[in-house]
Amino acid sequence: MNEIRSVCIAGAGAIGSLFAGHLGTLVQAKVLARREEHAARLNAEGITVSGKSQLHADIHAATSPAELGDVDLVIIATKATAVEATAKTLAGHFPNATIMTVQNGLGCEEVVARYGDWPIISSVTFMSGVRHSDVHVEYELDTATWMGPWLSGSATFADVEQVADLINRSGLKAEAFEDLRPAQWSKLLFNSSVNSIGAITNLPHVKAFAAQNGVSDLGHLVHAMMDEGKRVAEAQGIELYEDPWEMNVKAVSHGSTGEDDYAHVFSMLDDVRNERATEVDWLTGAVVREAARLGVPAPIHETLYRLVKAKELSWQQDQPH
Amino acid sequence: MNEIRSVCIAGAGAIGSLFAGHLGTLVQAKVLARREEHAARLNAEGITVSGKSQLHADIHAATSPAELGDVDLVIIATKATAVEATAKTLAGHFPNATIMTVQNGLGCEEVVARYGDWPIISSVTFMSGVRHSDVHVEYELDTATWMGPWLSGSATFADVEQVADLINRSGLKAEAFEDLRPAQWSKLLFNSSVNSIGAITNLPHVKAFAAQNGVSDLGHLVHAMMDEGKRVAEAQGIELYEDPWEMNVKAVSHGSTGEDDYAHVFSMLDDVRNERATEVDWLTGAVVREAARLGVPAPIHETLYRLVKAKELSWQQDQPH
Repeated sequence: MNEIRSVCIAGAGAIGSLFAGHLGTLVQAKVLARREEHAARLNAEGITVSGKSQLHADIHAATSPAELGDVDLVIIATKATAVEATAKTLAGHFPNATIMTVQNGLGCEEVVARYGDWPIISSVTFMSGVRHSDVHVEYELDTATWMGPWLSGSATFADVEQVADLINRSGLKAEAFEDLRPAQWSKLLFNSSVNSIGAITNLPHVKAFAAQNGVSDLGHLVHAMMDEGKRVAEAQGIELYEDPWEMNVKAVSHGSTGEDDYAHVFSMLDDVRNERATEVDWLTGAVVREAARLGVPAPIHETLYRLVKAKELSWQQDQPH
Repeated sequence: MNEIRSVCIAGAGAIGSLFAGHLGTLVQAKVLARREEHAARLNAEGITVSGKSQLHADIHAATSPAELGDVDLVIIATKATAVEATAKTLAGHFPNATIMTVQNGLGCEEVVARYGDWPIISSVTFMSGVRHSDVHVEYELDTATWMGPWLSGSATFADVEQVADLINRSGLKAEAFEDLRPAQWSKLLFNSSVNSIGAITNLPHVKAFAAQNGVSDLGHLVHAMMDEGKRVAEAQGIELYEDPWEMNVKAVSHGSTGEDDYAHVFSMLDDVRNERATEVDWLTGAVVREAARLGVPAPIHETLYRLVKAKELSWQQDQPH
């Protein structure tokens, strides 16, 4: 890929705003926004980042790629549920760009590749931000974005290293992997389990997710579901980078107090509470598809997948709740 | 057992009121109520039944068995969640009575037997009523109550026939079985699946429960869960009286219109909507326990059991929803 002198962030939610603000301090930063009003404010005010970083960057924003000119890197930072629509918008534009996807779960790269032959970089991010307005985001969790070449495409490890280097110099954290799958699948199996269980029970990530005493304890379900997912990873020769069960136990320790008061509300639970379509097709559904392809039984993933889809269906029913 | 000249109904919800009203036209009917106010109104006004039956019966009601004297038959018509407390109240009373349980699921007979050596009749009921007040119930679904001797106790088939005959003469429907388990397990496997799935998805019994097209369709889950339950029944030599999947398909046909507008709201879903403890321990949990005892894998039942228990736990969390 070209030396990166300009980037376009497609989708400026919390993650997209963090990328645009930070990268905008080093290279020309453009934003492809969905709303005209959002683009207008970004053009007038740029992006301000507070919290773990304190910075401001000018932004060139528009709602159509034709107004943005070419760039060297496009980061698609929408939710997985919006990637298809975004890729459709990008088709025929940014001919010299490499595209990086940052969605939860599996399968967004395939969707992007259907709309153009850009080299594609896969990534998973663990950073988080709080979006205070269209032009102000607070950098909260300063954990890394892990990235690697999408193995069915033409991006090289050198491309990934260049992007990771730029991200690190901008004040965010990135790590380049020759094969992202061990890291990607660690996060996938963590999220395909805890995110779907949270969505269906209305529980944030409380200690019950690691409880394994009585037969009805939720930790037994989380553990069995992750073990099932690990067998799907094993069947395709992926050695996990981190053990999802250990990630789960660590996540519910909640520091020294051990209280559940600040338990993390999963993104899918937030979607369910707001009756928005969830990312279950890219998380639990992705494991179900891979399991079927490989002939590995996955009854627990199938169950949670169907339950979350049925929960989404319940919003269309004319009923009291 | 004695010829039945007096009965006591413990718990006068919809089902209990239907039994008390109907049986009270043939024999002396007593009601063991939880609330003083309820007992007082029953003593003053009796029970009126409308709908499929039109009748009135005088009732002798109290909140303590000591005030009721002996009876020949006790029908425990509370929810499964209240059977332990009811049996504790009955301990030491009604020495000449046979006790009949009418709860959903498995395991209530064992609980009753811990508090006295009464002969016990098992039953499952498919009738339904709408409780309009403490003294007025509408008889809605006039389907039968199936009954048989509890096989670990001393009730005989002749006892069951006598009770069934009384119920039939009173205007309700009953059927006596020498071995109730084939009927009981048909209803158990139907309810352990559809009730828990409804509770966790907020869906009443809509057509989606029988849909089996795409991989994420809910009918696949219902079907797989019932097949799993059938393997648990088979392992103990029980040949089902009705196929639970066929019961499910029939139940979602909703007559000629095919609309979901009048889809049945499962009792566990009603409990969840009102944040009351559900009967999951006697339904899905009962299948989990039997599967473990017999060494039959039951991952889907385990999953739904743990999800419903986690849903109950979510009400104790201090959170926005």
